[in-house]
Amino acid sequence: MASDKRIGVIGGGSWATALAKIVSDRNDTFSWWMRNPESVEHIKKYYHNPKYLRAVEFDVDRINITSNVQEVVENSDVLIVAVPSAFVHASLKDVPKELFEGKIIFSAIKGIIPEIQSIPARYFFKTFGVPYDNIGIICGPCHAEEVAMERLSYLTCASMNEENAKLMAEMLSTRYVKTSTSDDLFGAEIAAILKNIYAIAAGVCGGLGYGDNFQAVLLSAAIIEMERFLDKLNPFHRDVKEPAYLGDLLVTSYSKFSRNRTFGYMLGKGYSAKAAQLEMDMIAEGYYATKSVYEMNHKFDVDMPIADAVYNIIYERISPVIEIRILADTLG
Amino acid sequence: MASDKRIGVIGGGSWATALAKIVSDRNDTFSWWMRNPESVEHIKKYYHNPKYLRAVEFDVDRINITSNVQEVVENSDVLIVAVPSAFVHASLKDVPKELFEGKIIFSAIKGIIPEIQSIPARYFFKTFGVPYDNIGIICGPCHAEEVAMERLSYLTCASMNEENAKLMAEMLSTRYVKTSTSDDLFGAEIAAILKNIYAIAAGVCGGLGYGDNFQAVLLSAAIIEMERFLDKLNPFHRDVKEPAYLGDLLVTSYSKFSRNRTFGYMLGKGYSAKAAQLEMDMIAEGYYATKSVYEMNHKFDVDMPIADAVYNIIYERISPVIEIRILADTLG
Repeated sequence: MASDKRIGVIGGGSWATALAKIVSDRNDTFSWWMRNPESVEHIKKYYHNPKYLRAVEFDVDRINITSNVQEVVENSDVLIVAVPSAFVHASLKDVPKELFEGKIIFSAIKGIIPEIQSIPARYFFKTFGVPYDNIGIICGPCHAEEVAMERLSYLTCASMNEENAKLMAEMLSTRYVKTSTSDDLFGAEIAAILKNIYAIAAGVCGGLGYGDNFQAVLLSAAIIEMERFLDKLNPFHRDVKEPAYLGDLLVTSYSKFSRNRTFGYMLGKGYSAKAAQLEMDMIAEGYYATKSVYEMNHKFDVDMPIADAVYNIIYERISPVIEIRILADTLG
Repeated sequence: MASDKRIGVIGGGSWATALAKIVSDRNDTFSWWMRNPESVEHIKKYYHNPKYLRAVEFDVDRINITSNVQEVVENSDVLIVAVPSAFVHASLKDVPKELFEGKIIFSAIKGIIPEIQSIPARYFFKTFGVPYDNIGIICGPCHAEEVAMERLSYLTCASMNEENAKLMAEMLSTRYVKTSTSDDLFGAEIAAILKNIYAIAAGVCGGLGYGDNFQAVLLSAAIIEMERFLDKLNPFHRDVKEPAYLGDLLVTSYSKFSRNRTFGYMLGKGYSAKAAQLEMDMIAEGYYATKSVYEMNHKFDVDMPIADAVYNIIYERISPVIEIRILADTLG
């Protein structure tokens, strides 16, 4: 038991399921919310999530699994929110603001909340009045599928409040997960969002037949572009070569488990964004992030040729062949 | 024709053959040396190198192909040396020093010259008296195999003399190769050597069954370790996130074409270094680099847990399982 604080996990997708597994391997009890009551019943009866990471078995006697989100918020001191960004507000909007009082909230969302066009930390602050000091983020590099297989992974827990970052790092530290802490809440949030856009770009180039040489140059340029954006939005002493930034970018852009990369690959192969999403039957966070970052950047006007190219391909329906050819001239 | 300077390519391996292809696509004529007279005859007769990148056809009427190295040095103003580091001295030692007078030499060697335990730039300076101003390096990210396929690639030409860097960048710029210049001769040389060690580490971890999450953390740590070593050896205003450093590290560590990664993978699977090399029938530059860097670092005493782990696995025959487990504790 890492702490006597009560933990709640919000979300029933693959990343939420991976986090629930980690929490379950480190802590005696916790609460777990997912929207779908049938999934709740399935886990209680068969010990695994019917839709994601089905190989992971849960000791259900130690978990309060429910589709009542209010109950989980109420019965937890520390909440881990791992819902796709597009569904965060729909999942939480009926929870009375007062229930969040005194709670510590760690986001594992990695996307822009569309209703407020901003990062999760700001959403919790604005919508539920959670002070920034009590907000954190859990970031990778970490694919849910590898957590399921108990392959050694690393998580960074970032919060402006060092105590809270340490608390979460403790709560997630297991045999196969090593954790570290950071105080760069905003930078880590934005990096986690940007990397999905760059993974789409990497996928597009793969789909178009560009090779490993090009991919390596693209990702070198991507981490430099990411640093430029972060420095403009939130000047801070950070090293983007650290795992929470570069590592997360690499795993998302190179791994076969990455849905953002797969989405980009299909775009490169000529699928429209809509057709690719139908085929994948999964949400690629980068799809939304691309638009949000593009719009955010109206104000900041940072030079972002890679993110712009992805925007043009998805939202302006410009041919990937042309966009990447233009992009290629700016690289190297 | 990029320039009226006469070009010579030294080497008959896969990277030399790829460079000969690039040179041939950009320049009207050039000289090309390889050690093996039978290979010379084969190319003259069948238009391709019998051993490497056999799909690449050469217009032999425009190329002076020979196994007489002195002739190539004598008839060239600019030399591109692309021989495995272990064979550089054997290839060049009989060429009279005077023949190098006034020549510009670009190294594409990417290894430590064992006879002097130092980088190629220093070898040309010490052995043939070539002034540093006339020495350069051609660096990736660039796998020979992808050049053969004419997949878009990027090369960086580094020299302390900007004019020479530009000259070489011009001479190698083709439809499928974009070039840029740098003035960080020593940093680029050392980075090109280090990245092979890290690619071995990445391969070892792959062979041991570590996954993408771990790999991403390992490479984040590797680029930070590389920066630490470069800053100690040669303090210089450089950004290791640029393609010549990070990009080269990524392509070498992730690509299936990488022989250093493959060598590491076999070590991870339990092969001894000797057995792995016999099986591969190719030299992994990182094998020598690991030892040289380890010895160089006696003097500089930089904290290099990844390079040390590779050294221990190869030269101290410590089990990869144990070495990587210890290394894993230092990461993240």
